[in-house]
Amino acid sequence: MVKTEQVQRYLIDHSLDGALLTSTENVYYTTGFRSDPHERWLAVFISPEGQNILICPGMEEAEARSAGWKGTIIGYSDTENPISLLHKKISTGKELNTLAIESSHLTVERLNSLKQSFGEFTVHSIDQTLNDLRVVKTQEEIALLQEAAHLADYAVEVACKELAEGKTELDILATIEYELKRKGITEMSFSTMVLTGKNAASPHGTPGLTQIQKGDLVLFDLGVVYKGYCSDITRTVAFGEITSEQKKIYDTVLAAEMTALEMVKPGVKVSDLDLAARKVIDEAGYGDFFPHRLGHGLGLNVHEYPSITSSNDLVLQEGMTFTIEPGIYVPNIAGVRIEDDVLVTSSGFETLTKFPKTLQVF
Amino acid sequence: MVKTEQVQRYLIDHSLDGALLTSTENVYYTTGFRSDPHERWLAVFISPEGQNILICPGMEEAEARSAGWKGTIIGYSDTENPISLLHKKISTGKELNTLAIESSHLTVERLNSLKQSFGEFTVHSIDQTLNDLRVVKTQEEIALLQEAAHLADYAVEVACKELAEGKTELDILATIEYELKRKGITEMSFSTMVLTGKNAASPHGTPGLTQIQKGDLVLFDLGVVYKGYCSDITRTVAFGEITSEQKKIYDTVLAAEMTALEMVKPGVKVSDLDLAARKVIDEAGYGDFFPHRLGHGLGLNVHEYPSITSSNDLVLQEGMTFTIEPGIYVPNIAGVRIEDDVLVTSSGFETLTKFPKTLQVF
Repeated sequence: MVKTEQVQRYLIDHSLDGALLTSTENVYYTTGFRSDPHERWLAVFISPEGQNILICPGMEEAEARSAGWKGTIIGYSDTENPISLLHKKISTGKELNTLAIESSHLTVERLNSLKQSFGEFTVHSIDQTLNDLRVVKTQEEIALLQEAAHLADYAVEVACKELAEGKTELDILATIEYELKRKGITEMSFSTMVLTGKNAASPHGTPGLTQIQKGDLVLFDLGVVYKGYCSDITRTVAFGEITSEQKKIYDTVLAAEMTALEMVKPGVKVSDLDLAARKVIDEAGYGDFFPHRLGHGLGLNVHEYPSITSSNDLVLQEGMTFTIEPGIYVPNIAGVRIEDDVLVTSSGFETLTKFPKTLQVF
Repeated sequence: MVKTEQVQRYLIDHSLDGALLTSTENVYYTTGFRSDPHERWLAVFISPEGQNILICPGMEEAEARSAGWKGTIIGYSDTENPISLLHKKISTGKELNTLAIESSHLTVERLNSLKQSFGEFTVHSIDQTLNDLRVVKTQEEIALLQEAAHLADYAVEVACKELAEGKTELDILATIEYELKRKGITEMSFSTMVLTGKNAASPHGTPGLTQIQKGDLVLFDLGVVYKGYCSDITRTVAFGEITSEQKKIYDTVLAAEMTALEMVKPGVKVSDLDLAARKVIDEAGYGDFFPHRLGHGLGLNVHEYPSITSSNDLVLQEGMTFTIEPGIYVPNIAGVRIEDDVLVTSSGFETLTKFPKTLQVF
């Protein structure tokens, strides 16, 4: 409830007539009810007067109640228009002249449908305000992120135990997710990656029937969703003996990761992290083979604000969580990425992911 | 390539200056390249002159080429603005006064970012045109949907073999997805549902640690993505002996499903299917316990156009594919849903999903 009040205060401060939050993550953040409505409407309307209305498919009404939502619920059927139901519910003679929306989530079609029910209004984007609220995590959120990271570590352990000559990427992937489900985890943060040999040398490869062979580097990139909070870990391990060039690439990525990691503390600029890691890789001669940003914010979304790039001058604060994940991908030679989930503490950092980073050889 | 030409013809016919398709599904449908870009831009720009430009993250450029895209590619880095790159590429002195967009996919923020680069333009929604193109499947698409449905049948078989007293919903779920991965399927159409006993009596329950017990009805709702095409099957089976009321509910759902199914042929109105199934359930006295539409279109999206509701007067054509999935959910007594993937043929219908529907008892 505190979080609907934060939005309410924002509406009052900015003289806005209401806010309509529509993403699964922001509805969960403000109401405690998490649902993926697919193509149906899910939204919470928050007014400056404190009239809060949750809109969800009728068949999810009971779940919203049991998630603790005490405000009004509009549960609609497949033949009803939830926005016209909302309009009826809040039309108290008061005009809606300005509405705050999640402009990075609301579609053009849905904006049109809002205007059909409510008439013309001025659109105010509340995205950055929600980003600013969400970027610093509470103790409760950190505990959930820690558990999500702990489960990601476990998944990497499972993966390493499965490594064997002739097993395919998909064999390993199947076992990882099987074991997670047996622990109650049904939702991954994104499609699990298990990539080996040449396949790992693409930053966005697809796991398939490639068999693991002696001398391969094997890359795992995965994360779980735990009570709505995401983890995201990458580890690259050796299966048998690798070449000195592969080892050099591994050591360079690790040095880049550690360099950025050890800079993390309140007051440091995000861009400096990216630039520092990039410098280590450039100086080793692999600058052309690190084609992506250093990392991304992590929380209710696996990729969220802030983006950890060389052009983002945001300053770190205690309680922020994000990934650091440099990588080098040299076609036909090696693909190595090392990624941790990082929490900014009062004096520095803590990695939420703990799986060892010294080269593991199996 | 044929499909970009269909869009091109539409632009010419409607005097539009270009189209920007942005959903994973429509980019795949028109370009052959399928990618989930998360929060990054993925788009194809199609012009009436036949200038087609694919926009994707730079690290996916090679994959787009190997998927067969022969047009221009703008591969952008994490610090570049793909829309301003697009603007530079197509600014040939010609103004962009009208742009067709997927208004059900493009966000308000992205529309603003387009207008920042291109200046003001009139927005034309191309969604229904794409729906109309996609609603009738080609032979090639039907073959992929058949294979996706075949894999869903296989998954239900796996699930049934795993049924045993004391196993949890998540145990079964883990095995289903494990076996699918071993067949090369890494992507499900949606979160797999395995629900048993009281848990199945909610139309949108969540699988958990509930153990299967003698006398339970167990509901499986799942689907796979095969080369971009989705399946979606629901079967409800008995574990041990069930009560006569549970049996009556099962028989009613099956009768409703068969009634709607057997009406399927070109020329029939969608609404008549929903109404006919609903009538069977109403007459058996369970009308209040069937809270959702009869089904939904099925193709590149697991839920796509058309929606199979009592208010949709669309007329069926040969080559359409959709689900029929009536259900009855009586709290504490039974949750039963039976769902098939249905193809409209020249003279009637074919179910793509084939798993038996007479009550299976284990």
